[in-house]
Amino acid sequence: MRQVRVELGERSYPIHIGSGLLSDAALLRASVSGSQALVLTNPTVADLYLERVLSAFTDVDVDVHMMPDGESHKSLEEYGRALDFLLSKRHNRTTTVVALGGGVVGDLAGFVAATYQRGVGFVQIPTTLLAQVDSSVGGKTAVNHSAGKNMIGAFYQPSCVIADLAVLASLPAREFRAGLAEVIKYGVIFDAGFFAWLEESADKILALDEAALAHAVARSAEIKAEVVASDERESGIRAILNYGHTFGHAIEKLTQYGTYLHGEAVAIGMVQAAIYGCLAETLSIDDGRRIRRLVERFELPCEPPQLSVESVLEAMGMDKKVSDGKLRLIVPVAIGRVEIRDADSKPLRQALEYSVAGASPLDGSSDG
Amino acid sequence: MRQVRVELGERSYPIHIGSGLLSDAALLRASVSGSQALVLTNPTVADLYLERVLSAFTDVDVDVHMMPDGESHKSLEEYGRALDFLLSKRHNRTTTVVALGGGVVGDLAGFVAATYQRGVGFVQIPTTLLAQVDSSVGGKTAVNHSAGKNMIGAFYQPSCVIADLAVLASLPAREFRAGLAEVIKYGVIFDAGFFAWLEESADKILALDEAALAHAVARSAEIKAEVVASDERESGIRAILNYGHTFGHAIEKLTQYGTYLHGEAVAIGMVQAAIYGCLAETLSIDDGRRIRRLVERFELPCEPPQLSVESVLEAMGMDKKVSDGKLRLIVPVAIGRVEIRDADSKPLRQALEYSVAGASPLDGSSDG
Repeated sequence: MRQVRVELGERSYPIHIGSGLLSDAALLRASVSGSQALVLTNPTVADLYLERVLSAFTDVDVDVHMMPDGESHKSLEEYGRALDFLLSKRHNRTTTVVALGGGVVGDLAGFVAATYQRGVGFVQIPTTLLAQVDSSVGGKTAVNHSAGKNMIGAFYQPSCVIADLAVLASLPAREFRAGLAEVIKYGVIFDAGFFAWLEESADKILALDEAALAHAVARSAEIKAEVVASDERESGIRAILNYGHTFGHAIEKLTQYGTYLHGEAVAIGMVQAAIYGCLAETLSIDDGRRIRRLVERFELPCEPPQLSVESVLEAMGMDKKVSDGKLRLIVPVAIGRVEIRDADSKPLRQALEYSVAGASPLDGSSDG
Repeated sequence: MRQVRVELGERSYPIHIGSGLLSDAALLRASVSGSQALVLTNPTVADLYLERVLSAFTDVDVDVHMMPDGESHKSLEEYGRALDFLLSKRHNRTTTVVALGGGVVGDLAGFVAATYQRGVGFVQIPTTLLAQVDSSVGGKTAVNHSAGKNMIGAFYQPSCVIADLAVLASLPAREFRAGLAEVIKYGVIFDAGFFAWLEESADKILALDEAALAHAVARSAEIKAEVVASDERESGIRAILNYGHTFGHAIEKLTQYGTYLHGEAVAIGMVQAAIYGCLAETLSIDDGRRIRRLVERFELPCEPPQLSVESVLEAMGMDKKVSDGKLRLIVPVAIGRVEIRDADSKPLRQALEYSVAGASPLDGSSDG
């Protein structure tokens, strides 16, 4: 088992990473400090893992609350339902909310934990790759609003994260690959060596090689932990974690969150941001092509759907990353390094037009 | 103008206290750091003060959101309405939510500020005595649930509190007196000298003497600030601020929040907790009588309504102050000092029975 620590003073916590952790009853049991717990999950995940988790809590007053599967249920309505349930079961301030599932379950459960009686215990047991490398780490909790994703939420750190790599084997291939988009992101924004390792290790990762997976997840969690530790509430540097997300969120929104998995939209967004970087002359064409090629290597989409440039700009305008009227973009300047810049509208439009036309400076190969 | 500082590291903030502060445009303007603001208020308060507040924000992109007056509107529904409004007006992460009103407005606006886009700016302009000495200070934000008051919320500190003493003159007398209950509380829990000063200054305070009011509000805010600074999230000592509230909340709940103002229920609760203290032999009868007499002196109720002992115990059982099955009470041991103790059921029942019978060890005078 590997352990990554998120250093946040008195809110510091460990991320346990290893194969078979869901069968480690002692580890699970130690994560709940009071005498009550609520496991929040969905039927799909419950079928696979609930029994195993509950068997660790035989001496805890534990309740299970189910939410429907899918991003559209990460809503104020489901949030209210979970609160109603906690109250009906008379959970008190010492209870612990255990999120067993992917990002939707984790984000909603986290917001419930953050706000039930002004904050109770919270444990993340992420069961998707995306949740293990991204959403379960760093304390961003939220629900969606019809006006935008994650518009309502709180920063609230879990007391620990338990990432069992064995669960990745039962993940649909498409969902697994979507998680790899965030793994690529960490290489682009922070660690050229990790990016190069991903290029070399793509076959092993796609074959679910255990050692390769452990390194991919642990290094991703380490990078996220380091960025979050230096800027918990995203007043500065933490925004680099949004690389690819400004474009990606616009695409998700304009396709009504029904066409792409989040990681797929981020994959497209990372390529668009790389195109923007090339056009704004912050990034070399060669580096841009390496980004695009790694996205392709992991069988993720690179091309956005047919959307008008104006509609994308409009959708980006309401993005959370807008600060006082200016649109800030996370722009790569090299593999392993990004900068936070005010968007320059000319290369931005051009990048979106390239995307619409299905052709860009990144087409073709960098070594051909 | 007096200034009290709430010391919470990087979340420290000032409480400005003085007469006429709502006409201090520079002070108001300085409280908003970005280019957007939302003033959240209700029609009653808006009629009196909104124009004055808005005139300080001529160079800010300011919107006004009204919520209905009254505790029953401190709900998830109204919370959702306020979020819808912020999104419809395209407020971004640098906006500031300005709470202009009493505790209901402040608690709801604070929860909105805490959770809109995971937290935006927040300023408290309390317009009732209760809000000035209690709810606006310390960062407790919340909405109610049918299962209990303040069951959903967050700890979220404002960037400043602006308490204009001049507004107290326009407050209905009953509401003013209800605020005095919390003022008495600070004397009982923390400062015997302040309690004695209140006994001596009751006439001046009830006559709205400016210097007396300024001291009553400032000393209350100071005590609250000191307690909150040492235990922001109520893991220990902060609970002493709940003196009188466990009984008070039960009374409010059993009378459907329709009979008593919050401060009135707290006044009754403080007397009940004093009776409990006398019966549990932590408090002298003389000190208990001084508490009861000061409550009476400020024309606040001392006797609870006719409620069965069992129903009160049941209502206390679901109170937030229940931790792992035990009911903790804030018990006075002397004027100026309280202790947090597990409730002893015999004197607790006895205290409630005395209350029901309308007679108690505190009846009569300590000096007669």
